[in-house]
Amino acid sequence: MSLLICGSIGLDTVKNEHGSVEEALGGSATYTSIAASYLCDEIAIVGVVGEDFPAKYVEVFENKDVDVTGLEVAPGKTFRWSARYDDLNEAITLDTQLNVFESFSPQILPRFRNDQYIYLGNIDPVVQLEVLSNIDSSHLVAADTMNLWIESKNDELRSLLQKIDLLFINKDELKMLTEEKNLLKAAREAVNLGPKYVVVKQGESGAFIYGVDLMFFTPIFPTVAVKDTTGAGDCFAGGFMGYLANQDKIDKKTLKQALVYGTVLSSYNIEDFSIHKVAHISREVIDKRYEKLKSLTQI
Amino acid sequence: MSLLICGSIGLDTVKNEHGSVEEALGGSATYTSIAASYLCDEIAIVGVVGEDFPAKYVEVFENKDVDVTGLEVAPGKTFRWSARYDDLNEAITLDTQLNVFESFSPQILPRFRNDQYIYLGNIDPVVQLEVLSNIDSSHLVAADTMNLWIESKNDELRSLLQKIDLLFINKDELKMLTEEKNLLKAAREAVNLGPKYVVVKQGESGAFIYGVDLMFFTPIFPTVAVKDTTGAGDCFAGGFMGYLANQDKIDKKTLKQALVYGTVLSSYNIEDFSIHKVAHISREVIDKRYEKLKSLTQI
Repeated sequence: MSLLICGSIGLDTVKNEHGSVEEALGGSATYTSIAASYLCDEIAIVGVVGEDFPAKYVEVFENKDVDVTGLEVAPGKTFRWSARYDDLNEAITLDTQLNVFESFSPQILPRFRNDQYIYLGNIDPVVQLEVLSNIDSSHLVAADTMNLWIESKNDELRSLLQKIDLLFINKDELKMLTEEKNLLKAAREAVNLGPKYVVVKQGESGAFIYGVDLMFFTPIFPTVAVKDTTGAGDCFAGGFMGYLANQDKIDKKTLKQALVYGTVLSSYNIEDFSIHKVAHISREVIDKRYEKLKSLTQI
Repeated sequence: MSLLICGSIGLDTVKNEHGSVEEALGGSATYTSIAASYLCDEIAIVGVVGEDFPAKYVEVFENKDVDVTGLEVAPGKTFRWSARYDDLNEAITLDTQLNVFESFSPQILPRFRNDQYIYLGNIDPVVQLEVLSNIDSSHLVAADTMNLWIESKNDELRSLLQKIDLLFINKDELKMLTEEKNLLKAAREAVNLGPKYVVVKQGESGAFIYGVDLMFFTPIFPTVAVKDTTGAGDCFAGGFMGYLANQDKIDKKTLKQALVYGTVLSSYNIEDFSIHKVAHISREVIDKRYEKLKSLTQI
């Protein structure tokens, strides 16, 4: 089954204690699609870049067999984001230039309007809703969100939650969304808002999936080689959704396995800036890490 | 095998959004010994209380078959601690009255000086070292510590670390102790400081044990019935150490099981103030939660 990924594609300038990159390939759709490409053969992205978007970055997608026919090139400049990290657990945004992304109206090609697994990256819930209004049928719709939208577009976000099957969200943002301090209560409340499952990302403390009939935890993959955490959540979603779409099953076992695959893809991403590491791995090494990670919770 | 627990025994006044208690039974040795009592038949405490310590609180230990011959009654008042919680993840200390605890010099009865499992609750590392100077031989020595001692008694704490087999510590305090931001690096560094294993408590995000030959994670037991988190870490250590002493094995499998038992005992403790819940459970319900908790990480 194929996976349609809608989100941002941009140029990131990032600095932290381990180094820096300027105008590197970034954006939620970028990270998610590249991570998913190892687990799923049919991946397409929907997004927009400006006329200044480097051709070599388009090749990155093509090299991973990611379908870029839904990648619109609009008049103007590409989305840019600049940040620094004092602590790798928290990005401090220095500058955001929406550019062509400001007036982005996602066009879904007819062949992507049915029978897809759909992932809506962390963008304005108004745009996420617009994507869904162009979808006729789907196997599963997942979305990511963040504090910015919880605060500024709460009503739209709540409308979105009623239309999706699975929500990816950070622990603190889950508590903010649901106004619940207790993590389990917050997860329950999120499911009451619409999605059947919520996947809660806890940074260095791992992740869990919660649904009325399912609760499953995984720690992170332990690594000391952390260089840059930008895109970690997007790669997590890529591993999760790529595995799910490829298996084309939404049972408990597959969801649990997807959570572990998401964690593994995320662990590669943070080992270097931009997509420098995550674009250069293999299914073989991914599966090795998957087995190692599973073993960390087996008595 | 028997477990010797040294730590504070005091009267706690605690207030949070769910209610309050005044001069309730508290202290690290209290929580740890009561939690351990369900898993291990031979438990003795070493500590001090004042002449005002209520007889009914001594009975709490006796009802759990905790040996209190090492509980000294000294002239003066009992240790008192007062705190409030705005967020259940963090106690705000309002008042600490050391009283008889200030001049506490732990006396270890001759029959406890050999062949015990030993747990040093979170007290001044100088006192923890004094206890160990009275021990001739042991199967395993574990200790808990906190930010206060990392800052004010760093040298003494480092001396202690060279004499113990296992360290219990919170995630943030582990990073403070080792001056490492990366959790895995911090765990490695803690082991370099002396103990063979470090058990890292991550609050609502679970716990893990790390050693050169072992890494194992468990999530918390999911519960919405959280009333008061005072003593959660002590009960965690009680479940862990009680199970270990009872099994009298220090292999990987037993350490993993101990981590899950610690988490289970901690989960009962937080369901009510003081020892109100954790003193009224049974091995049967503990084992049920143990199986449920294990299932949350099994694919």
